[in-house]
Amino acid sequence: MQKKYLMSPGPTQVPLRASLAFTDPIIHHRTQEYKEIFRQVNENLKYLFCTSNDVLTFTSSGTGAMEAAVVNLLSKGDKALVVRGGKFGERWSEICEVYGVEVTNIDVEWGCAVEPGLIEEALKKDPSIKAVFTTLCETSTGVVNDIKRIGEIVAPFPTILVVDAISGLGAQEMPTDQWKVDVCVSGSQKGLMIPPGLAFASVSEKAWKLAESSDLPKYYLSMIKARKGLSKDQTAFTPAVSLVCALNETLKMMREEGLGNILARHERLAKACRAGVTALGLELFAKSPANNCTAIKVPEGLDGKVIKSKFSKDYGITIAGGQGHIEGKIFRISHLGYADTFDVVMAISCLEMVLSDSGRDVEFGKGVAAAQEILKKGEV
Amino acid sequence: MQKKYLMSPGPTQVPLRASLAFTDPIIHHRTQEYKEIFRQVNENLKYLFCTSNDVLTFTSSGTGAMEAAVVNLLSKGDKALVVRGGKFGERWSEICEVYGVEVTNIDVEWGCAVEPGLIEEALKKDPSIKAVFTTLCETSTGVVNDIKRIGEIVAPFPTILVVDAISGLGAQEMPTDQWKVDVCVSGSQKGLMIPPGLAFASVSEKAWKLAESSDLPKYYLSMIKARKGLSKDQTAFTPAVSLVCALNETLKMMREEGLGNILARHERLAKACRAGVTALGLELFAKSPANNCTAIKVPEGLDGKVIKSKFSKDYGITIAGGQGHIEGKIFRISHLGYADTFDVVMAISCLEMVLSDSGRDVEFGKGVAAAQEILKKGEV
Repeated sequence: MQKKYLMSPGPTQVPLRASLAFTDPIIHHRTQEYKEIFRQVNENLKYLFCTSNDVLTFTSSGTGAMEAAVVNLLSKGDKALVVRGGKFGERWSEICEVYGVEVTNIDVEWGCAVEPGLIEEALKKDPSIKAVFTTLCETSTGVVNDIKRIGEIVAPFPTILVVDAISGLGAQEMPTDQWKVDVCVSGSQKGLMIPPGLAFASVSEKAWKLAESSDLPKYYLSMIKARKGLSKDQTAFTPAVSLVCALNETLKMMREEGLGNILARHERLAKACRAGVTALGLELFAKSPANNCTAIKVPEGLDGKVIKSKFSKDYGITIAGGQGHIEGKIFRISHLGYADTFDVVMAISCLEMVLSDSGRDVEFGKGVAAAQEILKKGEV
Repeated sequence: MQKKYLMSPGPTQVPLRASLAFTDPIIHHRTQEYKEIFRQVNENLKYLFCTSNDVLTFTSSGTGAMEAAVVNLLSKGDKALVVRGGKFGERWSEICEVYGVEVTNIDVEWGCAVEPGLIEEALKKDPSIKAVFTTLCETSTGVVNDIKRIGEIVAPFPTILVVDAISGLGAQEMPTDQWKVDVCVSGSQKGLMIPPGLAFASVSEKAWKLAESSDLPKYYLSMIKARKGLSKDQTAFTPAVSLVCALNETLKMMREEGLGNILARHERLAKACRAGVTALGLELFAKSPANNCTAIKVPEGLDGKVIKSKFSKDYGITIAGGQGHIEGKIFRISHLGYADTFDVVMAISCLEMVLSDSGRDVEFGKGVAAAQEILKKGEV
């Protein structure tokens, strides 16, 4: 018998309260009963996004909502500025290019946050840029970007700011309206604690103006259709009903905990994880580390794929490896969503054992102790 | 206390065996464990679709897979022939038009099946038509089209045949390869007995050839990306993991029952439902009635919306009303997916009581008796 633990940055663990919602008999999505559930979901999504704007729900992975942001807000030949500092930044570029949007990339070294000044420079040089696409937490590198500063920079321009907060929302501060983010995109299987299958996008008035003139083709991902549905507590197309019902439970849990407490919990877990890792002599990959997952450089002489495999096969913990050109060079431990004190304790103690199993000289408990100093009651 | 029964043509009832799969701890979609589940799912989807071709899975409603069929197989300015005999036929036209595909519609009176000869005529007149889009069961009208004959007609042309079998698959005969259907589209919340959120498309070699030259923009719904993922027992983007795990259970149930038995069961239920309805003096709306749901004309002097509401409020049974211009004029009882003998008995007995409650002179048990004659053991 080996218990299994999921510590990947998505899908994340699903609380039993949400899992049990799946066993309720399925209801029809055009009934009053469903509308009331979806109304509650939307109210709580606004709370979580910190927005007074509509938050649209799509039945898709997060990528579907990213594509929705591109095809609904831009027109053929429009210019877009993309921050490309990891796999998910690259995805913005790829989507834009597929639709004939003219992309300027700000290429950021993987592991670093974007220098907001570069965005300012690019917009001043070309104020006809219609949209800036960036990422709150670049999950592939464990980096958090300074969205607050980027929002201040973009707001005075006619340009809209679109942020991929798929893995960041509910883990990292993201006050959408206050930070002047026009479109905030998220997904269900990260901080929102339910399985994958739903994606979200908040849309500001500034962004809706672009939507009205957008000429890129869309049907299933139409934001205008989604908004029309939302006005009747509905989606444009048949939604993933069971996921919406489960989401209603996790959003209620999040309101009960309170957004401030949720963010503080993630900050504490992230700090503890980093402290544990560095106490073991390992190095963080991210120069500006995010609170949803910790990216760790693979020590010289070891292979990241083997470390990931040992976590899983020998100890039952699923973590993430590196993507793209850093595959094998980093591994990532997530503390995102339904995660608490002992998830970090387990992860760090597992890391100690895996390093020892890999022939490294490890003082057992040293990393755990460093984490405990931050995890103990009373610490923030 | 009022028990609730779902008899709409999607979402349909979910067997407990599938619901319980949702309470298993969520697994990561890049693990060997998930790949093995998805491999089984794909093997069983091929069985159900009766195809040796790949069946692609998208996390979306059925409409997402319909859009995938258009944007992956056609190019701008291509010609398409669309059978438009209900709301879902109309959807093919709408999607094609959004993407600049030149559409010729064959408008069929709602409630009637398309006359296959009209397709032959249109293709002979213009052999440059790239694709014919039609519907197996047009859920909005309760009609089944003669896909077998349409397949024979289209096959000799360079044209591909795309069939929306979203509500029909697993209820109505649909041997994809044998009937020369190039793309068969389906969804999870109908005959496949799980909640909405997954959509499917089988793709023939003839269709893949068109995919290679297609210039319409796509990213999330890319079939080429989906096929690349499938070659590694994966999807291109994060799938709705929990729905895939539940689908694995219902597909196993379907293999245990056997496709022939499943289709015979749906045929028996549909015949019994029709017999019950007509024994009560009501008229069927569909001239060529499908086996997934029965569309019934609202008797003179009554309102379909009221009938639907009485089914639900007074007796706990969710049925469907009419859509578009036939709203209020028909109501639809589904016997699709996880449905058996007593679902039909309940529906017909409820219909008797609702008619009586509406002031009609009804002989209680008369409709039920007519249904029983077909439902009793030994009858087909």
